[in-house]
Amino acid sequence: MRTTTGLRATDPMALRRTSLERRDLRSDDLAVRVDYCGVCHTDLHALRDHDQHTEAPLVPGHEFTGVVTGTGSEVTAFAVGDRVAVGNIVDSCGACAMCRAGQENFCHSFPTLTYGGTDRQDGSTTLGAFSREYVVRDTFAYPLPAGLDPAAAAPLMCAGVTVWEPLRSLGVGPGSHVAVAGLGGLGHLAVKLAVALGATTTVISRTPDKGDDARRLGAHDLITSSDTHQMTTARDTFDVVIDTISAPHDLAPYLKLVATDGTLSLLGHLGPVIVETMDLLVGRKKLSSAGSGGRRSTAEMLQFCADHSIAADIEVLPSAQVDTALDRLRRNDVRYRFVLDMSDLD
Amino acid sequence: MRTTTGLRATDPMALRRTSLERRDLRSDDLAVRVDYCGVCHTDLHALRDHDQHTEAPLVPGHEFTGVVTGTGSEVTAFAVGDRVAVGNIVDSCGACAMCRAGQENFCHSFPTLTYGGTDRQDGSTTLGAFSREYVVRDTFAYPLPAGLDPAAAAPLMCAGVTVWEPLRSLGVGPGSHVAVAGLGGLGHLAVKLAVALGATTTVISRTPDKGDDARRLGAHDLITSSDTHQMTTARDTFDVVIDTISAPHDLAPYLKLVATDGTLSLLGHLGPVIVETMDLLVGRKKLSSAGSGGRRSTAEMLQFCADHSIAADIEVLPSAQVDTALDRLRRNDVRYRFVLDMSDLD
Repeated sequence: MRTTTGLRATDPMALRRTSLERRDLRSDDLAVRVDYCGVCHTDLHALRDHDQHTEAPLVPGHEFTGVVTGTGSEVTAFAVGDRVAVGNIVDSCGACAMCRAGQENFCHSFPTLTYGGTDRQDGSTTLGAFSREYVVRDTFAYPLPAGLDPAAAAPLMCAGVTVWEPLRSLGVGPGSHVAVAGLGGLGHLAVKLAVALGATTTVISRTPDKGDDARRLGAHDLITSSDTHQMTTARDTFDVVIDTISAPHDLAPYLKLVATDGTLSLLGHLGPVIVETMDLLVGRKKLSSAGSGGRRSTAEMLQFCADHSIAADIEVLPSAQVDTALDRLRRNDVRYRFVLDMSDLD
Repeated sequence: MRTTTGLRATDPMALRRTSLERRDLRSDDLAVRVDYCGVCHTDLHALRDHDQHTEAPLVPGHEFTGVVTGTGSEVTAFAVGDRVAVGNIVDSCGACAMCRAGQENFCHSFPTLTYGGTDRQDGSTTLGAFSREYVVRDTFAYPLPAGLDPAAAAPLMCAGVTVWEPLRSLGVGPGSHVAVAGLGGLGHLAVKLAVALGATTTVISRTPDKGDDARRLGAHDLITSSDTHQMTTARDTFDVVIDTISAPHDLAPYLKLVATDGTLSLLGHLGPVIVETMDLLVGRKKLSSAGSGGRRSTAEMLQFCADHSIAADIEVLPSAQVDTALDRLRRNDVRYRFVLDMSDLD
């Protein structure tokens, strides 16, 4: 086994620096020195739900960039020194219809998650990238295109591709009208990507104070969701509404904004939702969701971001301050994504 | 006022023959001798919810065919003797974005329903087509194309267009894979239309005994929803699932059948539904609904049906047997739509 250093959950609010083991390289493995790892809402949920007394150790972190430090005997696509990016999936069955279609994120036997997943070969529980080294199967690492800052690119690997897939599959492009509800980690990247795809893009926020930020991100307009007049005026006007609000909320006001045959895509809150069928019927509106990305679209997204100079707006903290990052993320006190610098784990 | 004869609700289970008044013809009105009117599930709901002691009289009936017997002074598109068809909408504001887009069924100030609606000029409550005469604004009457049997065409005006709009807006055509859940008034027309549009079409039924009927309607396959193996095999394979099941039911098994980026269209049960977001996320599936149709698509649907010799499979009863029709419809004892013959009202 290989030894590295990482951050392990000791309670829902705290992580502790510890020594971790990584597997010896299989023939198709890369060893990656983790330089930067984003902090995602999912990490908060995982910490909240984890019982350290009964379960395998929890090491969060599933959107990271780094440099290849070793390669398995049969790896040809990567070499030591390559910059790479890895997201929340590190393996899949490769055989089901979803995998064959390039949607490994929907693998019928469930993709192996970057942490808290079960390795398909040895059955071990995967440990995440809040760590100085990660060992990953080569097909689930992506070359980090030149021009992308490795810290700001890290959140593209989860937040970025999560908004990219619906924007692309819903055909967003020049002439599209897109609204983005909620301006956080997901939302700010949705705005940047929708704008770069050519869409007229509007931010929907509870309060008008995000107007300057919305415009700086490239948005053409801001609607305050508490302003009934604004919401009524915007009725039936958006081909796509990207809903990144992480708390449970009434979908009806957002469905009203969707144009005929348009789609409300739920990305933030992934629990059960109650839908009034009539809110879909009037306008033949669609409710959808998305999350993470397949290998093909992840690679496309990275290249698109490099071509359009898109990355996350981040606040970088040394990994030793992970508890501060988690605490502030809980209070949505970040514009717009924390990224941990792992160099202090050396 | 004009006088005619119709069937008025006296309790949730019974209608009584009675004399009715119709308005004198406005300049854009047609007087229509109602020959055939379909019996829709909506009629059952209206009867159940109607309080005859406190509300305006209820005369159901909103999918009918007949012959023009009189025209207002400015009517040019119709003449006495023309065969016409009318659906569940008889007016709309004509000015909102939905009306301007030809989706009068989604009129922002609500379309005037054929019965139980409020006339936009005199404020009276509309009385439906379980009646020998109906007076309708010319723009909401449709020429009945030659070759369509007037009895079998009547259900096209509600059930037909309700399945036509989602099939068309979801792009169903050659190469599409469509499943139709529930084989009743809506479902059997969905099968016929999907097949005629060129889709490979599968019926999903609780029991295998509808196999012969499904094939006779043109379906290529039948899946029994209680057969776990069949449902699992069909996972992720249908671009469109048309769900016409009228009772509340779990959507999860039907969402599982939808292909990546495909749509489950709810047409039968229109109450609130609970959706597990993860059932949408895995496969980026969409939930939608539809109901009724705009003027343009209603006319298109009628012509398509004439071109492809499509009409409802009906059981015709004299209007005097309306209570039998309603009672049997409650028990889903009809293949596949009751149509009342109004000639006994003369």
